[in-house]
Amino acid sequence: MVDFDLRSANARLRASNPLIQCITNTVVQQFSANVLLAIGAAPAMLDHEADAAQFTRIANGLLVNFGTATNQQFLAADAAIEASDADSKPWVLDPVSIGAVDFRTTRIHRAANSSPTAIRGNASEIAALAGVGLGGRGVDSTDEVDAVIPAAAELARTTGAIVAVSGPRDAIIAHIDGADHVARIDGGHSYMPLVIGTGCSLGAVTAAYLDGATTASAKFEAVVAAHAHFAVAGEAAAGGAQGPGSYSVNFLDALYALTGEQLATARVEAATIAGSANIGAQS
Amino acid sequence: MVDFDLRSANARLRASNPLIQCITNTVVQQFSANVLLAIGAAPAMLDHEADAAQFTRIANGLLVNFGTATNQQFLAADAAIEASDADSKPWVLDPVSIGAVDFRTTRIHRAANSSPTAIRGNASEIAALAGVGLGGRGVDSTDEVDAVIPAAAELARTTGAIVAVSGPRDAIIAHIDGADHVARIDGGHSYMPLVIGTGCSLGAVTAAYLDGATTASAKFEAVVAAHAHFAVAGEAAAGGAQGPGSYSVNFLDALYALTGEQLATARVEAATIAGSANIGAQS
Amino acid sequence: MVDFDLRSANARLRASNPLIQCITNTVVQQFSANVLLAIGAAPAMLDHEADAAQFTRIANGLLVNFGTATNQQFLAADAAIEASDADSKPWVLDPVSIGAVDFRTTRIHRAANSSPTAIRGNASEIAALAGVGLGGRGVDSTDEVDAVIPAAAELARTTGAIVAVSGPRDAIIAHIDGADHVARIDGGHSYMPLVIGTGCSLGAVTAAYLDGATTASAKFEAVVAAHAHFAVAGEAAAGGAQGPGSYSVNFLDALYALTGEQLATARVEAATIAGSANIGAQS
Repeated sequence: MVDFDLRSANARLRASNPLIQCITNTVVQQFSANVLLAIGAAPAMLDHEADAAQFTRIANGLLVNFGTATNQQFLAADAAIEASDADSKPWVLDPVSIGAVDFRTTRIHRAANSSPTAIRGNASEIAALAGVGLGGRGVDSTDEVDAVIPAAAELARTTGAIVAVSGPRDAIIAHIDGADHVARIDGGHSYMPLVIGTGCSLGAVTAAYLDGATTASAKFEAVVAAHAHFAVAGEAAAGGAQGPGSYSVNFLDALYALTGEQLATARVEAATIAGSANIGAQS
Repeated sequence: MVDFDLRSANARLRASNPLIQCITNTVVQQFSANVLLAIGAAPAMLDHEADAAQFTRIANGLLVNFGTATNQQFLAADAAIEASDADSKPWVLDPVSIGAVDFRTTRIHRAANSSPTAIRGNASEIAALAGVGLGGRGVDSTDEVDAVIPAAAELARTTGAIVAVSGPRDAIIAHIDGADHVARIDGGHSYMPLVIGTGCSLGAVTAAYLDGATTASAKFEAVVAAHAHFAVAGEAAAGGAQGPGSYSVNFLDALYALTGEQLATARVEAATIAGSANIGAQS
Repeated sequence: MVDFDLRSANARLRASNPLIQCITNTVVQQFSANVLLAIGAAPAMLDHEADAAQFTRIANGLLVNFGTATNQQFLAADAAIEASDADSKPWVLDPVSIGAVDFRTTRIHRAANSSPTAIRGNASEIAALAGVGLGGRGVDSTDEVDAVIPAAAELARTTGAIVAVSGPRDAIIAHIDGADHVARIDGGHSYMPLVIGTGCSLGAVTAAYLDGATTASAKFEAVVAAHAHFAVAGEAAAGGAQGPGSYSVNFLDALYALTGEQLATARVEAATIAGSANIGAQS
């Protein structure tokens, strides 16, 4: 069993004000930048192959999301991932659009095999990345989070990444010391999937929380804290919302207003997946 | 005379939750995605030449808008249009920025001659595409909607597309069974042109409503329903708005809240353009 | 000493409704377009090398910002800058991301040496461009505005541009008739740097105000008016804001609502930098 100190994770984020390089799709760049600013991080969307890797060495974390990838972004991501790995900096892979199209799917698999610190996606995307599903429709989830946990655990084992499955009840899976740990996080709101970028920006927030997390447990805690931040703020944002437009505005306000104390009230449950220690020992 | 069943058009949209591929300009991608989500459709902005056409075969409709087109987007659009035509899927052309610059104008004309299901633009853009005007200033309308109707009707005849002219009083023109039909739609608000993307996203909404419309009359009705959805929601959004910022938020809420019953209250007038049956027969 | 007639500057802007071509980063395109519409200008984000320069000849002003520059944008900017200079049209350089990465820094310096009408950036960016600092973290300011004024004045002398340093108290520096003039503008709000694009869009607004300003003094006044517009609206936007999300919405409303009379109430102080006339004469 793992115990999470979400308040400390948030305090570390606020103290470090991490600079997060986002090689991400153009649909969500503005929203992701505003989300990072709201939680106390700094965004930078440098994605040119000529200087992306140089910037990675300045940045504190990296997000890779090929949603509208150009050839420039594919090359920039290759270089930035290599620089992140060389400097042991955290980087997060968002496998959005996996499965739907072959060229992109190949590139996403290649990135997944380049030692991401975390992989964050919807259930259908994680299923497709793990080889047990066909992928989703854009950013929508078509499978259930619960059903994908075994495949996510296998993905965590094979890639070494913490695997985060976003949904009405998030599942964060980490393979630590031969055992599969899962944290479940309740929160958010039904308006959330109607606001473009709420999923993609969570990958950037995950990278921000990972800054300064050095142990496997601390990294697990960081990914959980990122999702808890969204879960609590996403719930609070519903107050006074008249629809997805006003919800989106409230959500940025709520992300900003959230204190470490409020984050610690997130509904998080942690468990060790039964029998996983043995499975881990065998692999 | 054509009679429109807007309530049924909306019910079909909500039942099918169509996946709309948007090859569109980066200025309006976020807004267009949020608009599609608000009306009950799903957005996907895949625009890489390596996989755009493969995605078109999964999607239910396509929007092509060259507002900030890259070479990648031009190639992706060529392939996606071909795939749409091959599968008889609906696709909408937005001729934004036509006339202003030669390279883009050439590409827009080429797309217009590739059997779009609908063409949606401002009066000045439609005039330029029809060869009777110089184009507009960005997304602004400089000509009047009324004045462009004869040219729009000619464009409908030559391209086979339903031609939608957006403005304070929209005009939708369809050439069906040798006659030119026009529907006029009142609504919206003066804040609307001050919110970037209200025009461009309407092209995406038009593609969404076209999903499942098989006959010429059903397609005409679908394009009218898309514009009516914007007209009614655009009027409702003015309530409580303090300026274009809050109007934009309200507009997304209003698009989401709109029921089929409310859509049916749109102020729509349909007519057959006098003498058009003869003109149609001669052409 | 220079005296500013901000009300007239605003009246000229509203009368001309200038069309501003923005070759700018994809993160802030939507926000910048909405800002331009709110103040009474028209945005156009044409940035393809095949037609950018042709469009420059139609437009009334140009913004160049390489925040997420592609090769296409670099080529488009080269051509658009050349067209602006040839036609004596105003253009504004935003040196965002200077210093952080070599390739981009080279391109920014090259643009700065191509006769921009104005250069607008944060203190750390202006310091880096002037060769006395290392650049900032994305769009954040790490140096103080006051400290960078001597370097900004030197930059104004060497480039011939009006140099605008954005911050809690903006500094606008112009080298006119052998003397360095500085205008200081108070206003805005602490939420402002938490909304992505408030800096980048100010560059576009500066280009809009520059339309029609022919003398050196009128250009100085125009840049001051642009910053005053943001300062006053940025202060007003805080009323009722619950965080950066609602502040952003209020800001667009406030930009739109601002009258020439209200603009004239901006807290602006102008001075001649002591001894600058001599320095100017020597250079």
